[in-house]
Amino acid sequence: MKKLRLGLPKGSLQEATFQLFERAGYHITVTGRSYYPHIDDPEIEVVLLRAQEIPRYVAEGVLDAGLSGYDWIQENEVDVVEVAELVYSKQSRRPVRLVLAVAQDSPFKEVKDLEGKRIATEFVRLTKRFLAAHGVNATVEFSYGATEAKVPDVVDAIVDLTETGSSLKAHNLRVLATILESTPRLHANRQAWNDPWKRAKLEKLALLLKGAIAAYSKVGLKMNVPGDKLPDVLAILPAMKHPTVSPLHNGNWVAVEVVIDEHQVRDLIPALKAAGAQDIIEYPLNKVIP
Amino acid sequence: MKKLRLGLPKGSLQEATFQLFERAGYHITVTGRSYYPHIDDPEIEVVLLRAQEIPRYVAEGVLDAGLSGYDWIQENEVDVVEVAELVYSKQSRRPVRLVLAVAQDSPFKEVKDLEGKRIATEFVRLTKRFLAAHGVNATVEFSYGATEAKVPDVVDAIVDLTETGSSLKAHNLRVLATILESTPRLHANRQAWNDPWKRAKLEKLALLLKGAIAAYSKVGLKMNVPGDKLPDVLAILPAMKHPTVSPLHNGNWVAVEVVIDEHQVRDLIPALKAAGAQDIIEYPLNKVIP
Amino acid sequence: MKKLRLGLPKGSLQEATFQLFERAGYHITVTGRSYYPHIDDPEIEVVLLRAQEIPRYVAEGVLDAGLSGYDWIQENEVDVVEVAELVYSKQSRRPVRLVLAVAQDSPFKEVKDLEGKRIATEFVRLTKRFLAAHGVNATVEFSYGATEAKVPDVVDAIVDLTETGSSLKAHNLRVLATILESTPRLHANRQAWNDPWKRAKLEKLALLLKGAIAAYSKVGLKMNVPGDKLPDVLAILPAMKHPTVSPLHNGNWVAVEVVIDEHQVRDLIPALKAAGAQDIIEYPLNKVIP
Amino acid sequence: MKKLRLGLPKGSLQEATFQLFERAGYHITVTGRSYYPHIDDPEIEVVLLRAQEIPRYVAEGVLDAGLSGYDWIQENEVDVVEVAELVYSKQSRRPVRLVLAVAQDSPFKEVKDLEGKRIATEFVRLTKRFLAAHGVNATVEFSYGATEAKVPDVVDAIVDLTETGSSLKAHNLRVLATILESTPRLHANRQAWNDPWKRAKLEKLALLLKGAIAAYSKVGLKMNVPGDKLPDVLAILPAMKHPTVSPLHNGNWVAVEVVIDEHQVRDLIPALKAAGAQDIIEYPLNKVIP
Amino acid sequence: MKKLRLGLPKGSLQEATFQLFERAGYHITVTGRSYYPHIDDPEIEVVLLRAQEIPRYVAEGVLDAGLSGYDWIQENEVDVVEVAELVYSKQSRRPVRLVLAVAQDSPFKEVKDLEGKRIATEFVRLTKRFLAAHGVNATVEFSYGATEAKVPDVVDAIVDLTETGSSLKAHNLRVLATILESTPRLHANRQAWNDPWKRAKLEKLALLLKGAIAAYSKVGLKMNVPGDKLPDVLAILPAMKHPTVSPLHNGNWVAVEVVIDEHQVRDLIPALKAAGAQDIIEYPLNKVIP
Amino acid sequence: MKKLRLGLPKGSLQEATFQLFERAGYHITVTGRSYYPHIDDPEIEVVLLRAQEIPRYVAEGVLDAGLSGYDWIQENEVDVVEVAELVYSKQSRRPVRLVLAVAQDSPFKEVKDLEGKRIATEFVRLTKRFLAAHGVNATVEFSYGATEAKVPDVVDAIVDLTETGSSLKAHNLRVLATILESTPRLHANRQAWNDPWKRAKLEKLALLLKGAIAAYSKVGLKMNVPGDKLPDVLAILPAMKHPTVSPLHNGNWVAVEVVIDEHQVRDLIPALKAAGAQDIIEYPLNKVIP
Repeated sequence: MKKLRLGLPKGSLQEATFQLFERAGYHITVTGRSYYPHIDDPEIEVVLLRAQEIPRYVAEGVLDAGLSGYDWIQENEVDVVEVAELVYSKQSRRPVRLVLAVAQDSPFKEVKDLEGKRIATEFVRLTKRFLAAHGVNATVEFSYGATEAKVPDVVDAIVDLTETGSSLKAHNLRVLATILESTPRLHANRQAWNDPWKRAKLEKLALLLKGAIAAYSKVGLKMNVPGDKLPDVLAILPAMKHPTVSPLHNGNWVAVEVVIDEHQVRDLIPALKAAGAQDIIEYPLNKVIP
Repeated sequence: MKKLRLGLPKGSLQEATFQLFERAGYHITVTGRSYYPHIDDPEIEVVLLRAQEIPRYVAEGVLDAGLSGYDWIQENEVDVVEVAELVYSKQSRRPVRLVLAVAQDSPFKEVKDLEGKRIATEFVRLTKRFLAAHGVNATVEFSYGATEAKVPDVVDAIVDLTETGSSLKAHNLRVLATILESTPRLHANRQAWNDPWKRAKLEKLALLLKGAIAAYSKVGLKMNVPGDKLPDVLAILPAMKHPTVSPLHNGNWVAVEVVIDEHQVRDLIPALKAAGAQDIIEYPLNKVIP
Repeated sequence: MKKLRLGLPKGSLQEATFQLFERAGYHITVTGRSYYPHIDDPEIEVVLLRAQEIPRYVAEGVLDAGLSGYDWIQENEVDVVEVAELVYSKQSRRPVRLVLAVAQDSPFKEVKDLEGKRIATEFVRLTKRFLAAHGVNATVEFSYGATEAKVPDVVDAIVDLTETGSSLKAHNLRVLATILESTPRLHANRQAWNDPWKRAKLEKLALLLKGAIAAYSKVGLKMNVPGDKLPDVLAILPAMKHPTVSPLHNGNWVAVEVVIDEHQVRDLIPALKAAGAQDIIEYPLNKVIP
Repeated sequence: MKKLRLGLPKGSLQEATFQLFERAGYHITVTGRSYYPHIDDPEIEVVLLRAQEIPRYVAEGVLDAGLSGYDWIQENEVDVVEVAELVYSKQSRRPVRLVLAVAQDSPFKEVKDLEGKRIATEFVRLTKRFLAAHGVNATVEFSYGATEAKVPDVVDAIVDLTETGSSLKAHNLRVLATILESTPRLHANRQAWNDPWKRAKLEKLALLLKGAIAAYSKVGLKMNVPGDKLPDVLAILPAMKHPTVSPLHNGNWVAVEVVIDEHQVRDLIPALKAAGAQDIIEYPLNKVIP
Repeated sequence: MKKLRLGLPKGSLQEATFQLFERAGYHITVTGRSYYPHIDDPEIEVVLLRAQEIPRYVAEGVLDAGLSGYDWIQENEVDVVEVAELVYSKQSRRPVRLVLAVAQDSPFKEVKDLEGKRIATEFVRLTKRFLAAHGVNATVEFSYGATEAKVPDVVDAIVDLTETGSSLKAHNLRVLATILESTPRLHANRQAWNDPWKRAKLEKLALLLKGAIAAYSKVGLKMNVPGDKLPDVLAILPAMKHPTVSPLHNGNWVAVEVVIDEHQVRDLIPALKAAGAQDIIEYPLNKVIP
Repeated sequence: MKKLRLGLPKGSLQEATFQLFERAGYHITVTGRSYYPHIDDPEIEVVLLRAQEIPRYVAEGVLDAGLSGYDWIQENEVDVVEVAELVYSKQSRRPVRLVLAVAQDSPFKEVKDLEGKRIATEFVRLTKRFLAAHGVNATVEFSYGATEAKVPDVVDAIVDLTETGSSLKAHNLRVLATILESTPRLHANRQAWNDPWKRAKLEKLALLLKGAIAAYSKVGLKMNVPGDKLPDVLAILPAMKHPTVSPLHNGNWVAVEVVIDEHQVRDLIPALKAAGAQDIIEYPLNKVIP
C-alpha cells in the first residue's frame, strides 16, 4: 500500500496538533514505540520529531511531508514545498515573532550597536544572515535553552521567539528588531510533491486541516424571519457570506442560516433581533469548507 | 474611547463567570496584573473583586456595573440598578438560600427562641434586620469563615448560605428560618445607567449572557416527517415553542426543527418517533435568543 | 411511585457510563451514600455495583435491570433478558476478548497441550466450560488480579480479558485461543421484563442510550448545492442515508443535510466539494435516532 | 546461587511494604516486568501478588515465604509457618478487625438472628466457619468489593475488614461480632523453613524488619546530667530501658542516652529537665534492635 | 477529666501547625467533624478556627488558649496572656510585617499625605489606631481580600501583611510605613492561666513546641579528637554551647559532641577538621531543650 | 564583597542539586528572576544554566565554577580545573554511559561497520573524535532530542547517554561501544582557581558537598557491649572504620559507635547481635567527613 510519511512536532505543539488532526477526522494515539503514534488512516505513517529537525528530514526525503514552523524551515536553509499555512495554536492563533532583544537598560539602540558583541540563540543561521544583512559582525553562539535569562550576565543580546512578549518583559528585555514572523506550515519534500498520489493525499489533508482550523473561530447562526423583514436581515449579514434562506411551511416566514466569525456574534445578534429575526440560535461547528 | 468598568467576582464563581462570558462571546484571560484580566472587547474594562465588595464599589461609582449575588447587594444596603438575573452556577442552576441554623439537637424551635443568644455570620446587617423584624435581640458577630463549625461550641446559631443543604447536614445543623433566596445579578451604578452609551452596552451584554445561559439547558432537535404525520408531530411539541417546518425536496416530506429544554428530550424523542418522525438528531447549542 | 431499580458498574467503566447517561439525557451525581448516586429521573433508582456481580443480582431480582459485560453474564451462568448491546467504551468502541494465553516461549501450541496444567483466571466457570468442550482436564484457580503476571512463574496459562493486546504483549504472553468476545449489555430480570411499565421504561432508556452512542461516531454535514449538481452530490452520499434536501430561497439552489459516520468525512468532504457542493459545514451531534 | 523467593502484597500495602524494606536496608525498585521488582540483595527474589493469594502460593511452594495478613492466611486454610508478626501500617499501627456487620436500624441483635439470611463477604470460608461455630445457617456469597454498600438493599449482613470503624459508620452499619483480629505476618513454606539456609535468611530478614518497625515509634534521647542528679534522672527513665551512662571529660558530669517510645517523650522531657538534666536532645532512629 | 481547650489556626498555617505539633510529640488528625481534629492527648481538645477570630474567643473564654499572630491579637484589642512566641513558619522563620503601602508612582511620601484619602485593610482597628497616633484623618474600609490589587484604582492606600515584599512589588506598591511586626503566639485566657492545672499543661506544651522549633535550625555534630588537640577544637566551638566531651577507650582520644545552629556548620566543619578533629558526623535532631 | 559565581544545572538535575546543597548546608530558593536563585551565602552567586553550556561558560570566565557532567566538559573541549567528582544522582548513584547504539536487528557488529553511515547525537564533537580514533568516516548530525527513536528509520546509529539501559532496550537498540563514562563534576575556571580566596571557597564547598554525599549511603550504629565481648565485636566491624569506644558508667560495659555503609547494615546487625552487642540502634546522618 502506498504511504505518506508525515513528521509531526513532538513536545509543546504535540497536543494541539493531535487535537487539530482529531477535528480534521484523523485519530492519532500514542501506543507502543512512542515516537511512531498510530493514526487511523492506513495510508499515512506518522513520525514524531522535534520541530527543529522536521524541515531537514523533509528536505532529505526521510519524510514525505511535515509540520513545523516557518522559523525552523528558514533556519534549516532547506528547499521544501509549502503546502499550507496552518495557524492553529489554541492560545493566540497569531504568529510568533523571532526577535533580537537586549537588556531593558542596556545602551543598545539599534542593530549596529551590537558590533563585536556576543549573542546567544537557538537560531544561529537566521541570526548570522540577519546580522550580515545589516553589516554587523558579532559572535553568535548556540543556546541550549533558557536563552532569555542570559542577558545581560552571560551575553549582550539574544535572538529568541516570543508570542505575547510577556516572557521578554518578565526578563527585563527590550526588542531591538523583529527578524521573522512565523506560523506553522505543512511542507513537503519536492520529489514527494511531484508524485501525484502523494500530492493528492497532501491536498486532501490540507483541505481538512484548514476546514478544522476555520471552525475554531466560526459558529453557525440560525433564525426565523418574517418574509417582509428578510431584506433588513440580509443587509446586516456580512456581504462575503452566503446565507442559506429556506422557505418555511407556515405562512411567509423563512429560515436564515449563516456561518460567521465567532467574534462578530456579539454585535450581530442584537442587530438581527432588532431587525426582526426571532428564535436565533448559535451552534458550534467542527469544520467549515468554503 | 468610552469604557464600561465591570466588576466580576474573584474566587469560587470566577471560573464559571469566565466560562459564561466565553459562551456569550467574550474571551477573558488573566495576564499580567492578575486582578485586571484582559477581555477582548476594548470597550469593557474588567476588575476582579470579591463578590462581597462589588455592590459597594458599584454604588460608589468605582465600577459602572458588576456581577454579585442578591445576598451581597442586600447586605451592603446600597442603591443600585438591577440589569439582569443570571442563574449560571453550573452545578445546581438554582438559588442559594441564606438561612438561620441551629444545632440539630438544640432546644431552639423558632426565631424568637434566640433572644439573648449569640449568632455568627458573614451577613451581619441582613441578620440584624431580620432579627429586628422578628423583634428579637441577639448578639450578632462577624464570622471570618468556617461558620457552620461554630455551632454549638462557639455560638448558639449561625446565618449562612446553603445550596443543597448537605453541608448543614454534615455539621448537624437544622434550619430555623430562610432569610433570603439569592441568585447572581448584573447590577449597575445609577448614574452609569442613565448614560445612554453605557446603558446600551449593558443591555447588549445582558442579552448575550442570557442567551448563553439559556443554551446551557437547551438543545436543538431536527427530524424528517411525512406530510400526513405533521399534525401528530406538532401536537407533541410543546406549545410555547415555534417549530421551524421546511418543505423537503423529495415528495411531501417536511423537516421539523425545534429548540427545547434538554430535560424534555427523554420524553419527547420516544413520542416523536412513535408519531412518525424519522432521522431525529439532537445537537448542542451555544446561545438561544428568543 | 413505580421505580426501575438499575445496577450500573462501579469502577473503571463508571465514568464512561455516567457520561453516556448524561448524553442520553440523564444526569447522575454521586452524593451522600456513594453507592446510591442521584439520577434526575424519579422513576429510576441507580445502584453502583461491581460489573462481576450485576448479572447475579439482576437474575435474583435484587435489581430490575443492569449494565454489565456479556463476559460476566456468561460467567454468572444466569438467565436474564438482553435488552440492548451498548458499545460505548470511549477508547476503542470495540469488543474486549476473553483469551487463553501462555508464555511467548512456552511449548504450548493448542488448547489440548494444557492437559494437567494450572490456569489462573477471574472467569473460573467460563474457563472450565471451555476446557470441557475441548476435552481438556486442567486445574483452574481463581485469580484475584494481576493475572497476566503469573505466567510462567506461578501458573502455566491464564484466561483474561484483552482489548488491544498490548498488555499481553508487555507480559510476553501469546494467545492460544479466544474464548469469548464481549460488549456491555443492558439486561433485565425476566419478571421485571414482563411488567409492562418496567419494560416500556427500559425500552425508552435503551432507545436514548443507543441514540447517544450512535452520536459518538456520527456528525452532521450541511452544504449548499446548485440544482443541476444535486444528482452528482446525492450519488456520492452513502446509499443507506436519507439526505434532507430543502429548496433555497434564492434561485435554484438547494440545501443538503445528512448525518454520516465521522470516519467517512475525510473522504466525503473532498468528493462533495469536487462535485459542486459549497459552504460545507460539519457540526457535532448529541443523539441520532434512526 | 541460592535464592529466597518472597511474595510481597501488591496494591494498598505495597508502598508501605517497600518503605519498611527500605528502612530495614533493602532497596526495592519496580522496573521492567512490574510484578518482579528489583531488590538489591541477589539472594532474594521478590514477586508482587495480591495479599489474598500469597498464603496459598506459599503453602503450595510456589513461594518460599510471603507477607500477608493473618486474615488471608486463615481464609486460605493453609498450613504455613509464621515467622514474624509485623505491625507496620503507617496510619494506625494497630490490627484490623474482621467483623460481622448489619444495618444500624436492622432488628438483628446477635449472630443467631442471621439464621436463613444472606451475607456478602470476601472471606467466604472464614464466615462459614464462624457461622458453623455459632450453629447458624445462612447464605454466604462472595463479594467482589464495595461490600459495605450492600447492606441493607442487597444483603442482610456483611463480613468485612475495618480499621477505625469510620467506613462502617459512614455506611450506617453496626458491628454484631468480631470474627478475627489481623496483622501482617511474614510466613514461610514448611519445607523452605526446614532448609537451614532459607531459615537463616528468613530469621535475619525478620530481625531487620522488626528493628525497622520498632524504630517507627521510638526516638533517641541524650542529655547531660550532674553526677549528683544522676539517681533522680535514672529514677524517671522507664525501668525496662537500659540507659547508657558515660562519664564526661569535664568534672563530674555524665552523659545519659536512652531509647524510648516517642509518645512518652512529652511527659519525660519536662520531668527530666525538672530533675536536673540539661541540653536534652531528641533524635530520630532508623532501627532499634534490643 | 480535665481538658485544655485549644484553638489552632485553620487555613494557610494549618499544615505547618500540625507538623510542629507532630515534632513536639502530638499527633493531630482531621477526622469526622473536620473542625474538631483528633489529638492523641486526652487532656487537650483542639478547635480549628480562623486565625483572625482565635484571640477573641480566647479572651471571651470560649477557648482556654490559642495560637494566632501578634497582629490579630492586637487587631482584636483583647486582653490575653502571652505564653510563648513561636516562630515556626517553615519558609521564612521570620516575622511578617503589617505595612501601609501606596502605588509606586503615587505622590504620597509620608503618612500624613493620606489625610482625607481612602484606605482598604483587613486590620481596620489597627489602622485607625495608627492613623490616630499620626494625627491623620482618612476613611478606613474593611477589605474582604485581594487587598493589594485595589491600589490605585479602587483605594489610595492599603494596610496589609507582607513577608518578603515580593507580592507588594508585583503589585507595584511602595511601603510608606511599617505598623507592626508579627509572629505567632501561644496565648491564654487570663482565667485559664490562673488555673494551676491548665497553666502547667500550657507550660509543658510550650516547652515541647519550643524544643521542636529549636530543632528545625539545629543539628548535632560528633567527632573524635586526639587529647592534645582538644583545646584547639574547643576553642572553635561557640562559647555559649556546652560540648559533651567523653573519654574514648583506646588511648588518649576523646569524643566531642555538640548541638549547633545549622547555618554555622559550613564554617565550623572545615575549621574543626583543620584543628585535628576526625570522623566528623552531622545528624538531624527532633527536639532541643536547653 | 568577594563573590564566587557558580553555575548549576537547570532541568532534570536541578532538584537533586538543590537537595544536595541543602544537605551540605546551603539553602537555595528560586525567587524573582528564576535563573538567578537565592542562596543563603552572600559570598556565592548562583546562575542556573543548561548542563551543556556550563563548562563553556566556566572556561570563558563568565562563571568562576560550575557543576556539570564529565560528558559535557569533554564535549565542549574546554580547559577547566576539576575540583571534585560528585556522584549524587539519587536514583542510581552510578555513572551514566555515553554509548554508540544501533538497531537490535541491524547488521552492524563493530564500530567500523558504520563507515559511511549516518549517526545522530547531541554529542557531535565527542562522536567525531571517537570515530576518528577508530578510523571511521560517517556523517554525524546534531540531534535536538528524542535521539533513541531515530534508529533505524531516520539514522543508522546514535550516540546517547544511558543510565540503566532500559530506555535503549525499550527502543530495541543494541550497544556497539561505550565512548565514555560520566559523573557530575565541580569544575573551575583556571584563573579563578589561582585566586586564593576563590580556591579556598571552592575547597570548602567541595568538602561539604562530599560530606553530604557520603551521608546519603551511610548510617550511624551505636550499641552497648560487655567488656569481655569487645574484641569479638571489634573484629566484626570493618577494618577501615574507626569505632568510637567509650566506657560506660555502670560496671565494665562499653558503648561502641561506628559509621558504616548502609548496605552493610543488614549483614552487620545480625552478626553484632550474635557477638554479644545489645541495644543496637541505627540512626540517619546528614554529613560524614572522614
